[in-house]
Amino acid sequence: MKAQIITIGDELLIGQTIDTNSAWIGAEMSRLGFDVWRKLSVHDLREDILVSLKESAGKSHVVLITGGLGPTSDDITKQTLCEFFNTRLVINLEVLKMIEEMMKRRNFPMNENNRKQAEVPESCRVLKNGAGTAPGMWFEKDGTIYISMPGVPHEMKYIMTEHVLPELKRRFASQVIIHRNIMTYGTPEARLAELLTGFEADLPSEIKLAYLPAAGIIKLRLTGTGASNVLVNNIIEEQVNKLYSVIPELIYGENEDSFEIVIGKLLRERGKTISTAESCTGGKIAHMLTSVPGSSIYYKGSVIAYDNKIKSELLKVPQTLLEKYGAVSTDVAESMAAGARDLLKTDYSVATSGIAGPDGGSDAKPVGTVCIAVASEKGTISEKHVFGNDRLTNINRFSIAALSLVRRQIISR
Amino acid sequence: MKAQIITIGDELLIGQTIDTNSAWIGAEMSRLGFDVWRKLSVHDLREDILVSLKESAGKSHVVLITGGLGPTSDDITKQTLCEFFNTRLVINLEVLKMIEEMMKRRNFPMNENNRKQAEVPESCRVLKNGAGTAPGMWFEKDGTIYISMPGVPHEMKYIMTEHVLPELKRRFASQVIIHRNIMTYGTPEARLAELLTGFEADLPSEIKLAYLPAAGIIKLRLTGTGASNVLVNNIIEEQVNKLYSVIPELIYGENEDSFEIVIGKLLRERGKTISTAESCTGGKIAHMLTSVPGSSIYYKGSVIAYDNKIKSELLKVPQTLLEKYGAVSTDVAESMAAGARDLLKTDYSVATSGIAGPDGGSDAKPVGTVCIAVASEKGTISEKHVFGNDRLTNINRFSIAALSLVRRQIISR
Repeated sequence: MKAQIITIGDELLIGQTIDTNSAWIGAEMSRLGFDVWRKLSVHDLREDILVSLKESAGKSHVVLITGGLGPTSDDITKQTLCEFFNTRLVINLEVLKMIEEMMKRRNFPMNENNRKQAEVPESCRVLKNGAGTAPGMWFEKDGTIYISMPGVPHEMKYIMTEHVLPELKRRFASQVIIHRNIMTYGTPEARLAELLTGFEADLPSEIKLAYLPAAGIIKLRLTGTGASNVLVNNIIEEQVNKLYSVIPELIYGENEDSFEIVIGKLLRERGKTISTAESCTGGKIAHMLTSVPGSSIYYKGSVIAYDNKIKSELLKVPQTLLEKYGAVSTDVAESMAAGARDLLKTDYSVATSGIAGPDGGSDAKPVGTVCIAVASEKGTISEKHVFGNDRLTNINRFSIAALSLVRRQIISR
Repeated sequence: MKAQIITIGDELLIGQTIDTNSAWIGAEMSRLGFDVWRKLSVHDLREDILVSLKESAGKSHVVLITGGLGPTSDDITKQTLCEFFNTRLVINLEVLKMIEEMMKRRNFPMNENNRKQAEVPESCRVLKNGAGTAPGMWFEKDGTIYISMPGVPHEMKYIMTEHVLPELKRRFASQVIIHRNIMTYGTPEARLAELLTGFEADLPSEIKLAYLPAAGIIKLRLTGTGASNVLVNNIIEEQVNKLYSVIPELIYGENEDSFEIVIGKLLRERGKTISTAESCTGGKIAHMLTSVPGSSIYYKGSVIAYDNKIKSELLKVPQTLLEKYGAVSTDVAESMAAGARDLLKTDYSVATSGIAGPDGGSDAKPVGTVCIAVASEKGTISEKHVFGNDRLTNINRFSIAALSLVRRQIISR
């Protein structure tokens, strides 16, 4: 079962918009057992859209198309679909009514652009959009299903979830493709590959292994193919168990696990709470922790102390430490963590102090230096790392290193 | 001048990795005047890579390829390029030396996987990778330039910036394509299009207008094409001035401006400082403000008060307010903002209290409700909004709404 994705929009090609839609669609279609074998982005241009539709004919069971359905004049997907499917635009009264109701609820007046959004190609089946004004459209031609959806992510997701995925699931009995990710942290890719040489050599033929590195985290993706869920899951399970025995200390989670999710689970299980005391990470760690639904159970709050005065006045970091070692030091990070733990009354507190860049580095403490500390009833521990030169990358890597230390301290005896 | 992008990697198709590389490459190539007309992602599969290379032949001046160059066995791009260009892999001694030095600096031992990374197709020109171990490769065939680069973003960017972009700039004298973005906030797309009907009708033929909505922000992209920079810039400038007269109150910035960048500039100009008091946004606003290089000049710190105890004890929100109106109320948000301004001693302080979801909503205060407040010497102002159901989208939209209020308050008289 093959599927391909076509995303339409100049903004995708000139790099003003990052194409997150096709990643989401790719993940959902893979889950249904489709091999998403090709992903194409083209301009809002009649000829380019037509070429991409013609190319896809007969090569995939399903073609998923997003974008170019907005109410504004630069969007031409609907007219072009009419041309490809040899049909014409007609007003769909049900869609019109829905748009009228939506505008009323939001207290915006209805205008000509909104009315145009109720026009659809006559030969398509309309897929209602409960999250916006542009409906989805389902076409079939010469054995291929074509589905056109708006490019606004939450509208596309609504139409996929409510209409497309359930119907595709019903219609396609499938060979099973299962992906399982093992999340590792703490070693570079080439070294990890060396550690796993024997493991790779012994992999059964139904299983493929891929290394996906990002911000110090390396995701090991095992992909299994076979006749049934049970069969494939069993083979993957066996290989996962092997991985746990080969690199136990490097694995921190599985599948979509991030450090913040893993830490959330550990804290809930133990009935413990956490706070953060951030300097160089500027709220990023708090944002990561609170991005997890239900985090208010274990996350209490934070002090972000960019200014040294806030470090000393609120977090009670002694002036002598700041003068003797400087703000970027393990001593100050430890004092910040302990101070936040006292002030915010949590079981754990994690602190960061470092130089995210691009300026502020020195020979002794170059840009990319970070000191992190975790305070808890087990005492206070700290680490120092040196990463790269890019500000946002550093903020991210500092935060991940800090959360890795939190995890290790929670599970330590 | 046409260019296309091919990104290689299963992870892109099954949606485990969002393809940020091609967005970055698209933006850089557009800046050089290239029309990036096609962007394709394919599997790490010999046949699919070969088909995509053959398809591109003769249709573009430049083909930019990323991915599949890692040290691990799932990466097969180099072997496949050898096949397409009819050449073979040979060890490049310069690359080998560079990898050896890099591993030594990072204090990792050299292994067989690292050595394999020094192998390159004999017919290519090697582009040194100063940010990692896999070199870039430059091929030419039948009038088309093919450039293969690693998929790790900062390595790809290094090779593009150091080698590819400067050489392409030298070799291609170009027709000028200039993009300019006007950033708007505060009105839905169909309504904005209605306000701009006359403006659109009067646009000169060299200028195209596109609407790019994201998280409540609508980017208006003007694209001009012509013979020279001066010419195109003049025409665009004229249209931009018109926009400022048609929708003055909706425009908050231009081009890559985010609210945090705009606020940073305003605070620097005025010599003012800011802090945040966040509940439902959990550090996101602080993270946005501190993502701007040099923000430590005007950003001092924050209190994240997820727990009501922290709101009352640290931010001095009166218990009576919390009981009478609940934490999610404009009264409590105002009190939080004023409390943080006192505690952290800044000119401005912005507070949020709301329900990001997925749980915690009620009929009176559904998921998506947020109260935001800004305290300053001009007094304290607040707003209430209701957004959608998705937690991460809400955290983002709450934060943008809060920063929009900050901006308005800074520029108000």
